Amino acid sequence: MAEKTLDDLFYDTLKDIYYAERKILKALPKMARGAQSEELKAAFRKHQEETQGHVERLQEVFEILGKRAQGKTCPAIDGILEEGEEMLDEFKGQPALDAALVSAAQAVEHHEIARYGTLRRWAETLGMQDAAKLLSATLDEESATDEALSALAETDANQRALAA
Amino acid sequence: MAEKTLDDLFYDTLKDIYYAERKILKALPKMARGAQSEELKAAFRKHQEETQGHVERLQEVFEILGKRAQGKTCPAIDGILEEGEEMLDEFKGQPALDAALVSAAQAVEHHEIARYGTLRRWAETLGMQDAAKLLSATLDEESATDEALSALAETDANQRALAA
Repeated sequence: MAEKTLDDLFYDTLKDIYYAERKILKALPKMARGAQSEELKAAFRKHQEETQGHVERLQEVFEILGKRAQGKTCPAIDGILEEGEEMLDEFKGQPALDAALVSAAQAVEHHEIARYGTLRRWAETLGMQDAAKLLSATLDEESATDEALSALAETDANQRALAA
Repeated sequence: MAEKTLDDLFYDTLKDIYYAERKILKALPKMARGAQSEELKAAFRKHQEETQGHVERLQEVFEILGKRAQGKTCPAIDGILEEGEEMLDEFKGQPALDAALVSAAQAVEHHEIARYGTLRRWAETLGMQDAAKLLSATLDEESATDEALSALAETDANQRALAA
């Protein structure tokens, strides 16, 4: 059996985040429908469009590798999204719903920040500058989304959640 | 049925991260044993000690709330740790093992960063300054661990992974 090196790990993790992005793409419309405030609905819709772009960037990275774009089950994102759905059920119609949804969404963003940070570093180590640029562009958007959600929580979702 | 407000969400999420921290505390010795480099072993052992402190800080926050410290199953951390164990199996004895372990550990750190960031913000909104300070202290340690792992990856784990 061939040794497993950084190329293998990079390819495995690319499949992992490809699976995750496509699951997130399916979850976002549910979160947008569930959100109470128009601001949070708009934030989820905007991120849905961005996520479509992230999927396409990943397909470009697969192309750079000369491999077919394919996903690999990622128990981490499955668990994170499962928890988000539980929150959506549990807090439906409750004052704290939007605060719960922001929390769930930030868990998703942080998972992606971890994965894209790792993938970008590996692409650089492997001398794949074009792939690193694509991964970096997505990483920046995930970080910006995380910050936008924090700002929304401060100004809106948490205040609404206080109102009993 | 009473309305679910930010207090309920705060308490629920506290139970969620309490469960997660105790699962992480069990996973860290396995990761330390599995790591190839002495530096990564040492990083995991250091974080294990810190994690014990995080569990104790959470117990203090439960005390501030006047509630018994208890965990609540967190599918997110279960999924994240499951993926870490898969990596440990799959890359055992392989050049890319340490790079894989750093990646798995950073996924754990980012999940905690998301959760503690949220909890600290909620504690502030709820006017619980002492709780916010405790959560903030842990958040700082999780962020520092994430950065230390990035530095280890740059200098050691990824270079080792290249050596086929």
